[in-house]
Amino acid sequence: MPVIQIAGNNNISIENKREMVKKVSEVVAEAYGLPIETITVLVTGFEPDDIGAGGELLSDRK
Amino acid sequence: MPVIQIAGNNNISIENKREMVKKVSEVVAEAYGLPIETITVLVTGFEPDDIGAGGELLSDRK
Amino acid sequence: MPVIQIAGNNNISIENKREMVKKVSEVVAEAYGLPIETITVLVTGFEPDDIGAGGELLSDRK
Amino acid sequence: MPVIQIAGNNNISIENKREMVKKVSEVVAEAYGLPIETITVLVTGFEPDDIGAGGELLSDRK
Amino acid sequence: MPVIQIAGNNNISIENKREMVKKVSEVVAEAYGLPIETITVLVTGFEPDDIGAGGELLSDRK
Amino acid sequence: MPVIQIAGNNNISIENKREMVKKVSEVVAEAYGLPIETITVLVTGFEPDDIGAGGELLSDRK
Repeated sequence: MPVIQIAGNNNISIENKREMVKKVSEVVAEAYGLPIETITVLVTGFEPDDIGAGGELLSDRK
Repeated sequence: MPVIQIAGNNNISIENKREMVKKVSEVVAEAYGLPIETITVLVTGFEPDDIGAGGELLSDRK
Repeated sequence: MPVIQIAGNNNISIENKREMVKKVSEVVAEAYGLPIETITVLVTGFEPDDIGAGGELLSDRK
Repeated sequence: MPVIQIAGNNNISIENKREMVKKVSEVVAEAYGLPIETITVLVTGFEPDDIGAGGELLSDRK
Repeated sequence: MPVIQIAGNNNISIENKREMVKKVSEVVAEAYGLPIETITVLVTGFEPDDIGAGGELLSDRK
Repeated sequence: MPVIQIAGNNNISIENKREMVKKVSEVVAEAYGLPIETITVLVTGFEPDDIGAGGELLSDRK
C-alpha cells in the first residue's frame, strides 16, 4: 500500500515520467520488502506561479 | 475540522462526485462525533499518465 | 488506485476507525466504479496543538 | 525544508498569491528559526465542484 | 475552506506554533478574501530521520 | 523544489530508509533535470490500524 506523491513542475516529458514512476516504485517496494504491485504513485505538476521557493513565486524568478 | 483528500482518476461524473462527497462527509462526521458542517473534502482528479500502479503509468496499461 | 487521506483529531476509537474505513472505501469504490480492493485509506490523527481552526490552536479553545 | 501546501479555491489573483507566498514563507521561516531559502510553498486551486463543505459541493451552494 | 498543511521538523515550541498558525491563517484568509473562521491549519512535525534533503537523511547531516 | 511524500508502514529500518531516500532523490532529480540539492523527501510511517486496504484495517488482516 505504500503511496508516493511527487510534486514537481509541469515541465516533465511523458518518457521521463514513465521512467521515474518505474524506478521510484522499484526502490520503494524494495525498501519496504513489498511486491511492486502494491505501490501507487501520484504525480502532480505545478505551474511556476503555484510554487513558492524562498518566499517568491518561481514564475517571478529570472 | 476533519479534512478528507480523495485522489482518483478524472473519470467521475458530477453526480457521482456529489453523492460521494455527501456520504463520505456523513460517515467521517459520525466516526469523529462531529457535526457535518466541520467536514471539508478535497477531490483531485489525476490523468492516467500521472498515476503509477505497480511501477507503470496507468495510461500504458491496455 | 483511489487514495483517501483522512486527517482528524486523535480521539477516535479503533471501532469507529474500522467502521469509517469500511464505509468510506465502499462509497469511493462505488463512485469511481472500481473494486473495493483498489482503495487505500490513510488516517492521520492530529494532536489538538497541531490543528489550527480559525487562527487558533484547537488546544487553546475552551 | 519546511513544505507548506495551501489548498484553496481557484479564484485568487496572481498578486494575492505572490503576497501570500511571501508572507507565509516569512512567518514559517521565523517560526522554525530557518532561513527563508529553505521554504517551499505549493498552492493548489480547486474548482468549486471538487470541494465539499458540510457534505455538499461548493458549486451547489447558492 | 482553505486548508494549509505545514510539514516541518518537530523542533518547534508551542508558542512559535501558536503564533505561526495565527499569522498564516490571517495571511491566507486575506489572500482569498475569506473570513478567518474558514481556515484550517494542520502541522506535521517530522523526525530528522524521516526527512530527506538533497538525497540524505537530515539525521545524517553533521 | 520537487517534494516527494512517501506514506508506508512504520516497519522500515533506518538503513532501508536512508537508501530509499538517496535513490528516490536521485531518480526524481534526474527525471526533472534538477540538482539533487533541490529535492525534499518526507517519509510518514503509518500504524497498521491507520491504514485501510480494500475496506479493512491492515491490523485486522491475518
